[in-house]
Amino acid sequence: MASTSASLVHHSSASAFLPIPSPSNANHKTLPAPPLRGRTFPVISCSASPSSPEPAAATAAAAHNNIRDEAIRHFHSKPNDPIPFSAKYVPFGCDFDSATESYSLDEIVYRSQSGSLLDVSHDMSSLRRYDGAYWRSLFDSRTGKTTWPYGSGVWSKKEWVLPEISPDHIVSAFEGNSNLFWAERFGKQHVRGMDDLWVKHCGISHTGSFKDLGMTVLVSQVNRLMKLKRPVVGVGCASTGDTSAALSAYCAAAGIPSIVFLPADKISLAQLVQPIANGAFVLSIDTDFDGCMKLIREVTAELPIYLANSLNSLRLEGQKTAAIEILQQFNWEVPDWVIVPGGNLGNIYAFYKGFKMCKDLELVDRIPRLVCAQAANANPLYLYYKNGWKEFKPVKAETTFASAIQIGDPVSIERAVYALKNSDGIVEEATEEELMNAMARADSTGMFTCPHTGVALTALLKLRERGVIGPRDRTVVVSTAHGLKFTQSKIAYHSKEIDGMECTFANPPVQVKADFGAVMDVLKGYLGQKS
Amino acid sequence: MASTSASLVHHSSASAFLPIPSPSNANHKTLPAPPLRGRTFPVISCSASPSSPEPAAATAAAAHNNIRDEAIRHFHSKPNDPIPFSAKYVPFGCDFDSATESYSLDEIVYRSQSGSLLDVSHDMSSLRRYDGAYWRSLFDSRTGKTTWPYGSGVWSKKEWVLPEISPDHIVSAFEGNSNLFWAERFGKQHVRGMDDLWVKHCGISHTGSFKDLGMTVLVSQVNRLMKLKRPVVGVGCASTGDTSAALSAYCAAAGIPSIVFLPADKISLAQLVQPIANGAFVLSIDTDFDGCMKLIREVTAELPIYLANSLNSLRLEGQKTAAIEILQQFNWEVPDWVIVPGGNLGNIYAFYKGFKMCKDLELVDRIPRLVCAQAANANPLYLYYKNGWKEFKPVKAETTFASAIQIGDPVSIERAVYALKNSDGIVEEATEEELMNAMARADSTGMFTCPHTGVALTALLKLRERGVIGPRDRTVVVSTAHGLKFTQSKIAYHSKEIDGMECTFANPPVQVKADFGAVMDVLKGYLGQKS
Repeated sequence: MASTSASLVHHSSASAFLPIPSPSNANHKTLPAPPLRGRTFPVISCSASPSSPEPAAATAAAAHNNIRDEAIRHFHSKPNDPIPFSAKYVPFGCDFDSATESYSLDEIVYRSQSGSLLDVSHDMSSLRRYDGAYWRSLFDSRTGKTTWPYGSGVWSKKEWVLPEISPDHIVSAFEGNSNLFWAERFGKQHVRGMDDLWVKHCGISHTGSFKDLGMTVLVSQVNRLMKLKRPVVGVGCASTGDTSAALSAYCAAAGIPSIVFLPADKISLAQLVQPIANGAFVLSIDTDFDGCMKLIREVTAELPIYLANSLNSLRLEGQKTAAIEILQQFNWEVPDWVIVPGGNLGNIYAFYKGFKMCKDLELVDRIPRLVCAQAANANPLYLYYKNGWKEFKPVKAETTFASAIQIGDPVSIERAVYALKNSDGIVEEATEEELMNAMARADSTGMFTCPHTGVALTALLKLRERGVIGPRDRTVVVSTAHGLKFTQSKIAYHSKEIDGMECTFANPPVQVKADFGAVMDVLKGYLGQKS
Repeated sequence: MASTSASLVHHSSASAFLPIPSPSNANHKTLPAPPLRGRTFPVISCSASPSSPEPAAATAAAAHNNIRDEAIRHFHSKPNDPIPFSAKYVPFGCDFDSATESYSLDEIVYRSQSGSLLDVSHDMSSLRRYDGAYWRSLFDSRTGKTTWPYGSGVWSKKEWVLPEISPDHIVSAFEGNSNLFWAERFGKQHVRGMDDLWVKHCGISHTGSFKDLGMTVLVSQVNRLMKLKRPVVGVGCASTGDTSAALSAYCAAAGIPSIVFLPADKISLAQLVQPIANGAFVLSIDTDFDGCMKLIREVTAELPIYLANSLNSLRLEGQKTAAIEILQQFNWEVPDWVIVPGGNLGNIYAFYKGFKMCKDLELVDRIPRLVCAQAANANPLYLYYKNGWKEFKPVKAETTFASAIQIGDPVSIERAVYALKNSDGIVEEATEEELMNAMARADSTGMFTCPHTGVALTALLKLRERGVIGPRDRTVVVSTAHGLKFTQSKIAYHSKEIDGMECTFANPPVQVKADFGAVMDVLKGYLGQKS
């Protein structure tokens, strides 16, 4: 059936693509020249006429294109223009302009020559040719729509993520745009009357965790490498949890083989169900987790399988958009505090990087103070912070309900320290009992949080208790996974079946006979207490 | 800490509240008069000046208000104005103006005098004083922001949902704004090359199902009733699934007691975990499900407990916003087909109602054709449709993996028939094997669907196979819950442990020895197949 209002889409596409040709070429365009510093972005309304309407024939033809065709047509409509923005790998801590070692994002490289971390570094001078108001309006104009790929919370910031990738190579599930929940009742009842407390539910997402944000970037870049005939035939990881779920889902969306290595007999089928369902090739190997890691490193050195490991800096480019999105959802007001659970410690740096780019490009005038929250059972960063950043010692991580951050020797330690030092940051920790109680109290006010969120909420409770966080401070707690992934630990808590834990806030069901009088008695008792 | 850019919020608030005073009073306002028919809505940009800026003192004071205080201040800033829109209960099929029986939404009433269904009916003549362009722009301007309560996908359409409720009484978790996923690979590989196929993931949400959309409306109205001192002390339901989860979460957010009746020994703790965690008073009763239903009806007749049952028409007001949101995400283009799984059949009517309001108020010029998809094991609507709507017979529902639609005698049968007759609609069905295979195939292309979505996808496959749905038709499949709620059935499928089912698309893990050579052999074999 023919669309009756196709022209509306074209208005929107024009804004989403706006792509920002090089200013020096602006007068050669048939599209309107992009606004430069000091000019305002023309906000697109449904009723506005496009500045350069498509001829009728082109519009009719476009109605038969799908959204990806449409995106490619726009992206390549001026093939002779250079793409005005760029990014490359540099050793962590180096600068785009001054780095003596750097790699194209089209190279397959995980570490610098000296073995240190890499960072995706953007050409800030080209981004700076547009002012903060321009970027704010551009990002706002794209939110939540279906214009490929800009409706995604990640790709609505494409110029800041992977500027040079063609829309045709992007693998997106419209990730991001996640719920920024006003924790009104939790703040009022449990955090000494805080009334500007928010939980950023990054886990209310396609695969149920914040890993989607990074994985769309990694898998998109791998997809590009494959299209460029680079030696890649699939992507592999050794992970029991959210990483393998996100990797498998994005690879499935693109038709790229994904390979997941897991220790046999140490993993339940419930932990496997996402990669299995998403068509990953799951190898159940007769060893432990470290054995799997060793094998996948050896195998990926021999076979053209891209390694989706935790030191990968592409993923952080997606994760940083959660910070930008928080600012956007607050109408570009800056919160006072952002609290992030930390294990391998990439995420705290990603948040820092997102906020810092917004400040450097003048979308906002300051950045929030960051808090990294660790489980006491896996707290090497906390110990390092407490000894005044004097000496870092890995720890042997003990079991924690916050299983995704059960890491004793975090890959991104340098990144985290940099983020904290530059944001007047703080590190806190949570015992198992504290994190489970915080999770239960949050749930009792209408959330359905994961244990990692319990760690972050414990940090909030402690900092508020000590008066470090003030009663009117706008504070955002980052929730990294959906509680539906952690029902077993909730069941254990509410059944009071956790050794050595009181489970103070457990709320078990009440057994009643199937008798009107008996039910009435129980209910009257309950309602009497409540009134 | 003081906010450095509070003024930005005020611009946005001005648009979100745009309170739409009565046009006859427009010249008495200090705020700009609302645009009437033919006038365009002033799209708010971050850089625009507000039409009537707050005095500096008011702005500074407002910085200490939380978002709810701020909302109340705006809502009540003109206390003498009547609220220009209204809605009331009328018997299903009656009209706002001509109904001889009607009830205020502040009455506690579930059925009409004759025992038939009720419908929330809006005063369309007052809504019609604003044109389609106005409504489109108003809704677009609110999306995804944190201005209470308009960032929610439901409450961004407040005037069409519960026009008279104060923002102070609204209980919201920023529901809605859910992912409209472009099912590129599923369409291409499994549906004969469809390239404009979309899945509306209503289950990527606060409690993991579309029930949030209706429950925010029901619980908000109950909250208002309690504040108005009406005889309500809590809300009850008898449900094993998504309804009790959503009810408990929203009641927890508001601090309203919620009561859930469940049959003892028939429910696993996993099914209970959401209401338990969200602090519901869960009665485990020594009877079956029908026994629970009977008891809760008896008890709510005696005690002031509001019944959140499936015939409740308030919930449909929230659910209808998913239809409006689909149009909005497509930049107000109308898809050709929308496919909705159906059990109790309220949802198919809610979608119809949302689309119909958009057409009647000229946001769009037509409505999509609707398809209701039933499990073959619980298919009374399908049988009714197949016999030419001649005679409706309830069936005894057999067990289905699509457990939320395992209903033989649907409450909303009349509503569904009305929706289908008025949208040139179709009913399809899916066997257990068909729905599980469709779910598995969808998952293998990057989704993580629930069995109900499998039912809807089966309907799509059949209609496409028969040529009813064309290869270029823009088609939206409604996904009602997150796959994370249905991991048990996925595990059973991929383990091939379902009696009598081939589980054709199962993808079990592969066992390998912890040996480099063995792993390499297995991987080479796999990659050889793939290339």
